Amino acid sequence: MRNSSRGAVDPFIVMDVMESARRAEASGRHIIHMEVGQPSAGAPQEALDALASRMQSDPLGYTVALGLPELRARIARHYGERHGVDLDPARVAVTPGSSGGFVLAFTALFDAGDRVALGRPGYPSYRQILKALDLVPAEIEAAASNGYQLVPQDLEGVDFQGLLMASPANPTGTMLGRDALGALIDVCKGRNAAFLSDEIYHGIEHETPSVSALELSDDVCVINSFSKYFCMTGWRVGWLVVPEGQVRQIERLAQNLFICPPHAAQVAALHAMDAVDALDANLAVYARNRAMMLRELPGIGFDRIAPPDGAFYIYADVGDLTQDSRAFAAEILEKAGVAVTPGLDFDPARGHGTLRFSYARDTAEIAEGLDRLKAFMAAR
Amino acid sequence: MRNSSRGAVDPFIVMDVMESARRAEASGRHIIHMEVGQPSAGAPQEALDALASRMQSDPLGYTVALGLPELRARIARHYGERHGVDLDPARVAVTPGSSGGFVLAFTALFDAGDRVALGRPGYPSYRQILKALDLVPAEIEAAASNGYQLVPQDLEGVDFQGLLMASPANPTGTMLGRDALGALIDVCKGRNAAFLSDEIYHGIEHETPSVSALELSDDVCVINSFSKYFCMTGWRVGWLVVPEGQVRQIERLAQNLFICPPHAAQVAALHAMDAVDALDANLAVYARNRAMMLRELPGIGFDRIAPPDGAFYIYADVGDLTQDSRAFAAEILEKAGVAVTPGLDFDPARGHGTLRFSYARDTAEIAEGLDRLKAFMAAR
Repeated sequence: MRNSSRGAVDPFIVMDVMESARRAEASGRHIIHMEVGQPSAGAPQEALDALASRMQSDPLGYTVALGLPELRARIARHYGERHGVDLDPARVAVTPGSSGGFVLAFTALFDAGDRVALGRPGYPSYRQILKALDLVPAEIEAAASNGYQLVPQDLEGVDFQGLLMASPANPTGTMLGRDALGALIDVCKGRNAAFLSDEIYHGIEHETPSVSALELSDDVCVINSFSKYFCMTGWRVGWLVVPEGQVRQIERLAQNLFICPPHAAQVAALHAMDAVDALDANLAVYARNRAMMLRELPGIGFDRIAPPDGAFYIYADVGDLTQDSRAFAAEILEKAGVAVTPGLDFDPARGHGTLRFSYARDTAEIAEGLDRLKAFMAAR
Repeated sequence: MRNSSRGAVDPFIVMDVMESARRAEASGRHIIHMEVGQPSAGAPQEALDALASRMQSDPLGYTVALGLPELRARIARHYGERHGVDLDPARVAVTPGSSGGFVLAFTALFDAGDRVALGRPGYPSYRQILKALDLVPAEIEAAASNGYQLVPQDLEGVDFQGLLMASPANPTGTMLGRDALGALIDVCKGRNAAFLSDEIYHGIEHETPSVSALELSDDVCVINSFSKYFCMTGWRVGWLVVPEGQVRQIERLAQNLFICPPHAAQVAALHAMDAVDALDANLAVYARNRAMMLRELPGIGFDRIAPPDGAFYIYADVGDLTQDSRAFAAEILEKAGVAVTPGLDFDPARGHGTLRFSYARDTAEIAEGLDRLKAFMAAR
């Protein structure tokens, strides 16, 4: 039996947390889920109704590889409405989730051995997907004082053919303003490197709107998804926006690697984009939850947190409490019945002293979680 | 703007045919589709009903990476029922279509530069996916006298780390019997190479049942899908069966590359597996269509065909009629209003003299297509 070496990617530590939580629930305990990176709401009802109706009249066969034309057009219109960008729908590729978008973008842009710069902490699959595709993640420690986001100085002396940034970011929720984003795009231009902008948490922002890399340059690769703002995690549908000169390369890769994104998910996604009331209601839940988290966490003992500008995460430096975040998370699950994510998935170097709290679930669950954390820390 | 060299995969020629057919239809012509590799039926009604109901009560968030446990168990049971194989559900990985299965299998098994042997003609995405993953397709011409399937002698002197076979095959519909399949598996064992068995057309066979590679060895990688027999092309759900010692590698790759297969598609697939009456009805359509094709095609002038043991294709050597199958297919579309696929996608070397006819559509459409082909050839 063969196993490749590039396939030996790291496991997700959060999966172990989820499995421990599942076992605790199976044994009858009630667990509060602050570990999960997905909304508790599902796709908007309008989306489900549209799909249920369509399923009865359409065999939902293959779509063209870049996705339903009406969905590509609707996504392009979204950039006009939200970002003031006049985007040609031909530059939009619907993908099997942002995951599929990363596979497409990385294979379209980079050859084996190429180096892609990433800030640490960051979404762990970035480096695992790169590794599985025989690319080299060039991970750079991002300073807490910069909101754990890279700045141009961090890239000096680093060899890379691409730079991947996320705003709002996972696990921190911090965002890049227009100037910070533009400065990084400029560095890439000067280095003839690709700039990839992971905008999966766009639409979930709490103080100021997100800036899309497309507002600043056409020569960027934007990755987005219907999973977060549109609450469609399990549907596996997302999109890329690429430069005009890259569309054919992406199209041919998509034809061969995926044939097409899931048809049913594309139908649901198209209708989800107009479900403004349902999506606004979700944002109101996140806003309430975030305010409660920011009010309570410091008093509980989690006071060193990154500015939670967007997404539904709070990333806390707990280095004064532990140097073993995995054991600490296990203790919190065991004693408080609250599942949280140790920082090690996101930052193998410093994550032993950090935790990520998600507040994507219902407000009542978040409130109960905070009560439990308070009691746990008081007794500790 | 960057473009990788591995991303410069070939376009599908069949896509040009489909686009020409679409344009002809847009201009008001009625086109018969013998080019398309998908059933005209959609998912079984039971599957749609089950999903419609589930959507109302379940937010359909992420599933675990290897798929819903009940679906993995149901697939394992299928091997018991169809192939007499007692399969541990833990060895089944639900994937985003067989396409996703190939990406997972190739990255789990092979490192950049590894060589994977393939018979020509074959499904064109094999070589394109390999190329996109920096692997080397070692294409070997398969003899028409062997039903366009490789035999052990073809592999002598060829350097390869994996061998990928399909039975029933696309574009030919030919199948490998137990002995032929076993001989190839034995070659791989002796060479310490992985054996990959594409069984996507299993269930659609016309004379004798398909043999699964799992009947002969546990140390094989089986790729299958709900697209063909289960008529769920656009849903993007398939599966892998891998050796026990490879499950964790596949699981970690799946977590990172795809997170999970589409949840809605998994629910529909689970229920499709029990829709015996609907699936049998589809098989009856293919049987009628195939009989009609075999009765009519030789008289029309297409008499050199591979044994169409399974799938819904007939692969014809038209070398006595043309040495430019692309122009010939265009002429058939233009003059007869029948879309067929030139062999070049499947066999760049000999495909200039071959055509693939699909008989997956309704019987009335196939009958009309045969009438048109007859008139076209009579007038030629």
